[in-house]
Amino acid sequence: MNSRIKNIYAKLQKQNLDGLIVSSQANITYLTKFTSRDAYLLLSQKGNVYFIDSRYTEAAKIGLKSIAVIEKINGSVFKIIADACKNFGFKRVGFEERGLAFGEYKKIKEGLDKTIVLVPTHNLIEDLRQIKNKEELEKIKKATWITVKALEFIKNFISPGKREIEVAAELEHFIRYNGASGSAFEIIVASGPNSSFPHHMTSQRKIKNNEPVLVDIGIDYLGYKSDLTRVFFLGKINSLIRSIYAIVFKAQRLAITQIKPRVSINKVDAAARQYITERGYGGFFAHSLGHGIGLEVHETPQISTRENNTLKTGMIFTVEPAIYLPNKFGIRLEDMVLVTQKGCEVLSGTLHK
Amino acid sequence: MNSRIKNIYAKLQKQNLDGLIVSSQANITYLTKFTSRDAYLLLSQKGNVYFIDSRYTEAAKIGLKSIAVIEKINGSVFKIIADACKNFGFKRVGFEERGLAFGEYKKIKEGLDKTIVLVPTHNLIEDLRQIKNKEELEKIKKATWITVKALEFIKNFISPGKREIEVAAELEHFIRYNGASGSAFEIIVASGPNSSFPHHMTSQRKIKNNEPVLVDIGIDYLGYKSDLTRVFFLGKINSLIRSIYAIVFKAQRLAITQIKPRVSINKVDAAARQYITERGYGGFFAHSLGHGIGLEVHETPQISTRENNTLKTGMIFTVEPAIYLPNKFGIRLEDMVLVTQKGCEVLSGTLHK
Repeated sequence: MNSRIKNIYAKLQKQNLDGLIVSSQANITYLTKFTSRDAYLLLSQKGNVYFIDSRYTEAAKIGLKSIAVIEKINGSVFKIIADACKNFGFKRVGFEERGLAFGEYKKIKEGLDKTIVLVPTHNLIEDLRQIKNKEELEKIKKATWITVKALEFIKNFISPGKREIEVAAELEHFIRYNGASGSAFEIIVASGPNSSFPHHMTSQRKIKNNEPVLVDIGIDYLGYKSDLTRVFFLGKINSLIRSIYAIVFKAQRLAITQIKPRVSINKVDAAARQYITERGYGGFFAHSLGHGIGLEVHETPQISTRENNTLKTGMIFTVEPAIYLPNKFGIRLEDMVLVTQKGCEVLSGTLHK
Repeated sequence: MNSRIKNIYAKLQKQNLDGLIVSSQANITYLTKFTSRDAYLLLSQKGNVYFIDSRYTEAAKIGLKSIAVIEKINGSVFKIIADACKNFGFKRVGFEERGLAFGEYKKIKEGLDKTIVLVPTHNLIEDLRQIKNKEELEKIKKATWITVKALEFIKNFISPGKREIEVAAELEHFIRYNGASGSAFEIIVASGPNSSFPHHMTSQRKIKNNEPVLVDIGIDYLGYKSDLTRVFFLGKINSLIRSIYAIVFKAQRLAITQIKPRVSINKVDAAARQYITERGYGGFFAHSLGHGIGLEVHETPQISTRENNTLKTGMIFTVEPAIYLPNKFGIRLEDMVLVTQKGCEVLSGTLHK
């Protein structure tokens, strides 16, 4: 049994749970180190069962080895999960309240005896995933490195007349030739006024001279994700854009300066937000400062004003202050930071901005 | 008010529901014709409210116009949804049991008065989405056309020594230069023995001579999806591969011959499965024959042995029989078919196989 699963056993014992139904694919992948899709995992000291349909059975047999018994789904997976809970003699079974749809919960419940209680759990596995080990760190560093290279490459491609979607096409092409299995999300290329939408959908728009081009890209490397944003400039850039860029850049530095173990997470957000607010743009930075990243692009912890937990060594998250001026333009700068024992390391720090 | 929303009002009235909380992004997009992400929609004859966080507020204001009031989320969206239900004076509110996580359901319930009942609904909007109108059909046809072109293009690129991931890179590049906003899922390129896994993850493997290369690709065009699979051959192909290909090819033709309005859906699956079984490979075709496609890659109806509903004019789905021989190779052929008044039209029929 691996140590991750042992950690979960300990947590289950504390909550007086006989087993746990894991339905988040990222959590299953974390526990089994086997990339899972459309799977369910029943964890318990009495045995671990991996439920998968026939499309993935062959791959699962090879990838899972001693971790779990593999149950091929014929018919309703929810009935089969319920039957397994009954066969193990469970009294109290946990499930992931964020990862299970109400309809799925209902079907499992219908299959159980009335003496068995289904107990919602919250972030049991996600909490463990916040702290990255050496192996995970190496994969995330590689993912970040490929992304940095892709941004360096694209800098020379971006020019007036190119379409946003063409920039995305070149990036998708580049990352796969450089070790990525794919992009982690639809790459955002937002030119001119399109950059004023925080999550612009890359369009057919042709890039013009004298405007900013925002590129937000993340990749997948052996299951681990990256997420970086840069703004490139073409031609002459007016003084407003220049000054906004400088404010966002300094806000990011101020936030990063705060990062070290035991600091309250909201302080990191506050450092950037306070500076942007002082400069008169607080109302134009309308999202949180960042998010944890690992097997998923967005993980806990969220780096926001509402997060009162403290930073811990081994956490990795994005720092992405921004200012969006409606109908004009937006500037967002996003880097990935690792919390170290003494402070932090900017994983994406090698790219000249 | 558009006719799609009116149709839902009628369904709500039948079920004695005062309103419906829509949490599936594809359903929200269908109802509003505005591509939604991380949104919730509260539908009722008393008014429609669209809940969105600040990242998307500006875009939503432009895209939604008269359809809904836009509520910017500050704090918990679930509390705000609950408050809206209370303010409207609802007694019975529906929600989508497949689209709402148990934890989200719990939070909305906590915010409601005890006199308000939350009622799970199933496929209310998905059922409407099965029948495509002219505008949707045009978009799906265009998506299919781009995909067919991409497959024609890649046929000449695939050669011994190229890596699977490089084939995917070229396809990702091609589709964006030809009108797609992106791929609809991670493109599958499965060479040689990798093709025996129904959902192989495209790898760094170098393609060898004398083996089959399976390519499964779908794209996104203005929100609508395509999904096609072809198998290409390099060099000399042995007689087993040849005969398996012929069986799958004929199975697909037999299934397509069955397709017309009022035919039971399981008959379409049976036509292909029966033939493959007769030829001795029934145990190696371990998934259903196909799936509906539209705003999502996988939609209702599922084309399976368990689906007793009948075909209706305007449905679009994939027909993808397959035979997977473990450790050897797999053959899957996937086309997209439209049910017409007189029979059917193979949308992807122009590609020579």
